[in-house]
Amino acid sequence: MRFANATLADGSRHDVEVADGRITALPAASGRPAAGDDIDLGGALLLPPLVDGHIHLDKTLLGLPWVPNQSVGNRVADRIEAERRVRAARTVPESETGANLVRQVVARGTLHMRSHVDIDSQLGLRNLHEILKVRERFAGLVTIQIVAFPQSGILRSPGTAELLDAAIAEGADLLGGLDPVGIDGDLDGHLDALFAIATRRGVGIDLHLHDGGEGGIAQMVAIAERTRAAGLAGKVAISHAFALGSVPLDRAARTADLLAEAGIAIMSHGPGGATIPPLTLLHEHGVRVFGGSDNIRDAWSPFGNGDMLERAMMIGYRASFRHDAELAFALDMVTNAAASVLGVAPYGIVPGGPADFVVVEAETVAEAVAARPTRKLVVKAGRVVARDGVLVP
Amino acid sequence: MRFANATLADGSRHDVEVADGRITALPAASGRPAAGDDIDLGGALLLPPLVDGHIHLDKTLLGLPWVPNQSVGNRVADRIEAERRVRAARTVPESETGANLVRQVVARGTLHMRSHVDIDSQLGLRNLHEILKVRERFAGLVTIQIVAFPQSGILRSPGTAELLDAAIAEGADLLGGLDPVGIDGDLDGHLDALFAIATRRGVGIDLHLHDGGEGGIAQMVAIAERTRAAGLAGKVAISHAFALGSVPLDRAARTADLLAEAGIAIMSHGPGGATIPPLTLLHEHGVRVFGGSDNIRDAWSPFGNGDMLERAMMIGYRASFRHDAELAFALDMVTNAAASVLGVAPYGIVPGGPADFVVVEAETVAEAVAARPTRKLVVKAGRVVARDGVLVP
Repeated sequence: MRFANATLADGSRHDVEVADGRITALPAASGRPAAGDDIDLGGALLLPPLVDGHIHLDKTLLGLPWVPNQSVGNRVADRIEAERRVRAARTVPESETGANLVRQVVARGTLHMRSHVDIDSQLGLRNLHEILKVRERFAGLVTIQIVAFPQSGILRSPGTAELLDAAIAEGADLLGGLDPVGIDGDLDGHLDALFAIATRRGVGIDLHLHDGGEGGIAQMVAIAERTRAAGLAGKVAISHAFALGSVPLDRAARTADLLAEAGIAIMSHGPGGATIPPLTLLHEHGVRVFGGSDNIRDAWSPFGNGDMLERAMMIGYRASFRHDAELAFALDMVTNAAASVLGVAPYGIVPGGPADFVVVEAETVAEAVAARPTRKLVVKAGRVVARDGVLVP
Repeated sequence: MRFANATLADGSRHDVEVADGRITALPAASGRPAAGDDIDLGGALLLPPLVDGHIHLDKTLLGLPWVPNQSVGNRVADRIEAERRVRAARTVPESETGANLVRQVVARGTLHMRSHVDIDSQLGLRNLHEILKVRERFAGLVTIQIVAFPQSGILRSPGTAELLDAAIAEGADLLGGLDPVGIDGDLDGHLDALFAIATRRGVGIDLHLHDGGEGGIAQMVAIAERTRAAGLAGKVAISHAFALGSVPLDRAARTADLLAEAGIAIMSHGPGGATIPPLTLLHEHGVRVFGGSDNIRDAWSPFGNGDMLERAMMIGYRASFRHDAELAFALDMVTNAAASVLGVAPYGIVPGGPADFVVVEAETVAEAVAARPTRKLVVKAGRVVARDGVLVP
């Protein structure tokens, strides 16, 4: 079959020929009317599938009656406490709310995601098991990479290191971490634990690092050293990395060089209240920069909806992006760059590649990011899985 | 007629009885099925109409083919230059693009707005005349308050003071201003010109103040002194006021006291790249704080869509709001507080008041802000003017 008259990101007009779930050819648009099973896109913009590089499928309360935020303080530690209370009051398992979120994001064009899953001494591997069910359930539709995330710290929640190790054995793909200094108060202890498991298990690491200023930078420098020593280049990411946005630019630039050399990627969701890393500077220094939703209607944040075009807009808004090339960079963060970090391959609109794509009514990539139109079509392996923002049953 | 089974902002369930464009009664929901012309809201949330306290109807390029941003530098002065180039290339008058924007925002529930309109020695009163046409055209649907805005400065664009004066004579409602120091380089000269016209014409003032840090604070202090001296309490607003977010909190608090005493309101759009004023601190110190869209798809910004529920979310996101009361405060900024600053009266969901309201599928005000659902109904004077996000022809 043929998806006729698509505008690609570079502005060129093509037909997309599809068979057996793959793109078989990308000829210049013939202008031939659609026939049979063909779908005429009428010049709409065709993008690769959206990629969410940082989501918390187990935290969302999506589909439940509205749950007011209950955090008392603003520190990460206060909010961990608040989440415990919300979690205790839950009446629906994480596999159901997680599934609600997967359905919502697929309808908005996300077909690949990296989900952090909380692991601590209270929860054990319960949330992992719930999200493994979600991964299984939607296996034909989306890829879900799972990060075993020590939301309560590693050292301050005894037994967590062993649980992280067990999580990898049971199907988690990467190890997470959390503010080695701000939460665990022990940089070396936290990193010792993580890198030991990562080396033994042969997996990557994606750490949450909220700690700001020089303290945060020092932790990045340590992570870069450990990454080099462990030979984990290309397999480590630091999520948030607010510190890069709270130090002078030359300091950020020198840190960027270290990160690039160590092969560490940086994830930003375009934070609302915190400082945003200097994204283009990082990119210019060779750091892969990718995007993610972070919290979506959960105990951490009432905001968020998993729409990665909207996320690209939020990132661009926070980063003072205005030019078309900047908006294209924001889109890249939630498509190509995120796919690269997550190891999604093959990826992109290429002959021989998977017939996965998203269609929106927009003239240009810049307009798609700025206006975030409803997804006209979401196509997975050549099959229309969502139309006009609604899943096809 | 009756809008049955509405949930009001406080959670109570009411029927809204309407006659001759006004709310005649608000009895507790009877549960009686809708009959005749009645509309059953099925428990959906009914909000007062949204108010945009800061829009630029003459700048938007909405409805034109995508126009890439052309600014070369990041300073306000660079961006004024970039806008001149975009303006020169325009093929459609501001009255048409402005009308496109009015239609879009009405479909999203905005029924009152304050639009700044560019005035300088090149443009003269052309943009004012274009937006006066828009005001006339939509007079039955929305109220548009017009600010005569010296986008190129007053002193650095000779003749502008006279044009501002003429703009008031021709129908503008308030005087605008722009960074007295950052653009005009003459605090007293800029304020002399503005307050002389305001006093002579008996109108209020709404200044754009981007200048940050202590320099920005000093300008606010001067504006507060002038406002007191001119007896303009309650008629002056400062838009953006980034400086309040870039000084220590105690300095912001002392400035807030001066602003409150002088009766000066502060407008924030939840800036992406600049510092946001401490909104709750300002409110606690007695300053009226209101919200606006600012730029919408124009030479200044590719972003924005005029959706004031989304704007409340952006404000809340930037201000680190999470609790229901904070989200309600963000909504207040684009409803009651903005209506109060704009002098929209009567306003609100009260017997005897206008039958103007917005209906969304949300359990609570907090959810409405966080999720920004499509407007189920927009009602003006008892008439449904938009349904499911689309204007009723």
